[in-house]
Amino acid sequence: MFTGTEPGIGGDNVSEGSQEKAVLRGNAVIAQSGGPTNVINQSLVGAIREMVRAREIKGVLGARHGIRGILEEDFVDLRAENPRSLDRIAKTPSAALGSVRMKPTDDDCRKLFEICRKHDIRYFFYIGGNDSAETAHIVAEHAATEHYDMRTYHIPKTVDNDLRENDHTPGYGSAARFVALAFMGDQLDNRSLPGVKINIVMGRHAGFLTAASVLGQQRSDDGPHLVYLPERPFHIDRFVEDVKRVYNELGRCVAAVSEGIVDESGSPVYRFKNGEVDSHGNIELAGNGALGDFLARTIEQRLEPTVPNIRVRADTFGYLQRCFPEVVSSVDADEALQVAREAVRTAVSSDRPSGSIAIKRAGTAKAYAVTYTCVPLASVARETRCMPGEFITAEGNGVTDAFRDYATPLVGRLPRYGWLRGRSA
Amino acid sequence: MFTGTEPGIGGDNVSEGSQEKAVLRGNAVIAQSGGPTNVINQSLVGAIREMVRAREIKGVLGARHGIRGILEEDFVDLRAENPRSLDRIAKTPSAALGSVRMKPTDDDCRKLFEICRKHDIRYFFYIGGNDSAETAHIVAEHAATEHYDMRTYHIPKTVDNDLRENDHTPGYGSAARFVALAFMGDQLDNRSLPGVKINIVMGRHAGFLTAASVLGQQRSDDGPHLVYLPERPFHIDRFVEDVKRVYNELGRCVAAVSEGIVDESGSPVYRFKNGEVDSHGNIELAGNGALGDFLARTIEQRLEPTVPNIRVRADTFGYLQRCFPEVVSSVDADEALQVAREAVRTAVSSDRPSGSIAIKRAGTAKAYAVTYTCVPLASVARETRCMPGEFITAEGNGVTDAFRDYATPLVGRLPRYGWLRGRSA
Repeated sequence: MFTGTEPGIGGDNVSEGSQEKAVLRGNAVIAQSGGPTNVINQSLVGAIREMVRAREIKGVLGARHGIRGILEEDFVDLRAENPRSLDRIAKTPSAALGSVRMKPTDDDCRKLFEICRKHDIRYFFYIGGNDSAETAHIVAEHAATEHYDMRTYHIPKTVDNDLRENDHTPGYGSAARFVALAFMGDQLDNRSLPGVKINIVMGRHAGFLTAASVLGQQRSDDGPHLVYLPERPFHIDRFVEDVKRVYNELGRCVAAVSEGIVDESGSPVYRFKNGEVDSHGNIELAGNGALGDFLARTIEQRLEPTVPNIRVRADTFGYLQRCFPEVVSSVDADEALQVAREAVRTAVSSDRPSGSIAIKRAGTAKAYAVTYTCVPLASVARETRCMPGEFITAEGNGVTDAFRDYATPLVGRLPRYGWLRGRSA
Repeated sequence: MFTGTEPGIGGDNVSEGSQEKAVLRGNAVIAQSGGPTNVINQSLVGAIREMVRAREIKGVLGARHGIRGILEEDFVDLRAENPRSLDRIAKTPSAALGSVRMKPTDDDCRKLFEICRKHDIRYFFYIGGNDSAETAHIVAEHAATEHYDMRTYHIPKTVDNDLRENDHTPGYGSAARFVALAFMGDQLDNRSLPGVKINIVMGRHAGFLTAASVLGQQRSDDGPHLVYLPERPFHIDRFVEDVKRVYNELGRCVAAVSEGIVDESGSPVYRFKNGEVDSHGNIELAGNGALGDFLARTIEQRLEPTVPNIRVRADTFGYLQRCFPEVVSSVDADEALQVAREAVRTAVSSDRPSGSIAIKRAGTAKAYAVTYTCVPLASVARETRCMPGEFITAEGNGVTDAFRDYATPLVGRLPRYGWLRGRSA
């Protein structure tokens, strides 16, 4: 058991320079939650470095697999980690502490505060998406009710980019880079062996990742030629007509389809295992091929009478989108680090018992810049943010230049591909 | 129409330095065929550069979409391409000339030689796999029958790595790099959110790509924990037992499964659209999720009674494996370039009317090196090469160190990931 009483950990003169606020001194715990990303360990390492520097914080505990690690007292002493090892961990995909999808019950919360008291935990940092913000919010509310003095801060991450209050979220830029590169390569593949290609992209309620499929386009006839988002109802007949139109014009067609597309009534067009749900009530959609296969079969059946032997294929990008080594946006990696440092700095320097650090766009269209600001946990918890209307074309099957302007700085520099200029011989 | 008679193209003094052989002078045509890869354009550009230098070769034509481009006289003047543009094309995934899956009929061949005569085509280079070698072989046989003097050379490429006579083939190293990186990230993902994860990897008859899933492993319990190859019969019951054993030991399991796995009778465990075949008679397997979904469902149903709520997911990597920008093995890129240069040099300098350039391993286990050698077209055409027995474990569900030694130099340097050393607190 880690007690945080080892000599030499934490400074003594903690009130220096912060005379006007009550100094909260104790141990800190950090955990990771929800789907892992390519840069969630940047946040972990950024927070560790800042916690180690903070005189208010004594021991720095890592809880394995989110709040489950706290409940099971499965802690790692993060001060003991080698600094060079932390450099490498920061660049490692997925959650180094392990993750979890778990919404705490009232019983869990009671047990959690027993453990916090026992370990003198006064700082709780939770890295995750809207569900993790909800967990942090529940914990913060219980802390207030129980009059347990603890700072509870949420550090944002989600490849879906669907956190409210945020211009964008750490994890999105790198996943969007994966999607942009995948479509760049795949639409070149589709030029080589023409046909209809349908790619299913992650995104439960928000189309940001699917929209990123356009970011690698260089020529006016580059795919994806069609983009279907959860924000607009999906009509199978309209889809078939769209594909037919593009195919008749170009002799090929690449479509980007969100796994979260829904019909007019808001029901998923296809769902995994007839609607398996996690403890936050989310339907599991990713990682299966049923939607792609269904769309490909439909196109094949409906186009074959007029286009015999039409080549129709579907791929479901699945989990590769979120943890692919070396496909990392440098902007995303840096922001993931900074947002976590900001969370620790705010937790130790402000009087707010809880909050989430949100990323706001500060620069101009030409010069990208962001600021970090503390917002209430309730404002990012649970509900998700969708693509704004100005990012989606009027027809509902494509994205606008406003989206390109928004997303281009987030994915890092994309490669330029070459092609034969083709003076016919 | 390109006639190859423009002044300044081709040298005059072609017999210099090659007095002992009959000089064959004329135009050259090059084309790409089969599934595109990340480095097939390295071969194209390598061949173009060498053809432009060869005094025996006058015009350099690119045929669009393989032999179909020849039959339709759809040519590009490759001498007119900008050298800097060629640099970028070499690094661009997919086939810059377009590709095709087409086995020429006797009628096609007759037409082909009419066109060759008309354009004075004396050199024919075909970049592709075993089917493309078969096409080149058919063309070469017809050329002999018709007494048409033409050099027909096959330049190897295939992500499947299944060409006979070759130690390995251009395209494999980069696709294997993709698979190795994908599993590195995905098994970290699986550590974060434990469960059973099944990934379906390309490879119609040969398991080389699926086997590459192990190359990013660093820790003894890194996934994939199980590897299923087309070279060994797949038993669903044994698969379930294997997964159960690993899951009971580690609390998670990552399996790499080839899309081409077959049962005892040699029938695919699952096939696309009930056995769609191309003109070479190949069953189309890639790009659909049915096999992965079937295996995931089976594991779920069979393990759920003893492990309630077990998390089982499947991904099918699909077409992303062969054309993902920036995921390129530098060794692979270089060899793709060299093998094409060697083909052109052999075609102009030897008296052999046809051949394929094969890559042979020349170095030691410590110092990787290769040589290029010309082999008969018939020896690489049509049939495929499988994984040698020494690369597969006795249990048939894993790969050996001999495979690791073989494949490690081919994928380029893989990143090292970091992890918490985890002194428990």
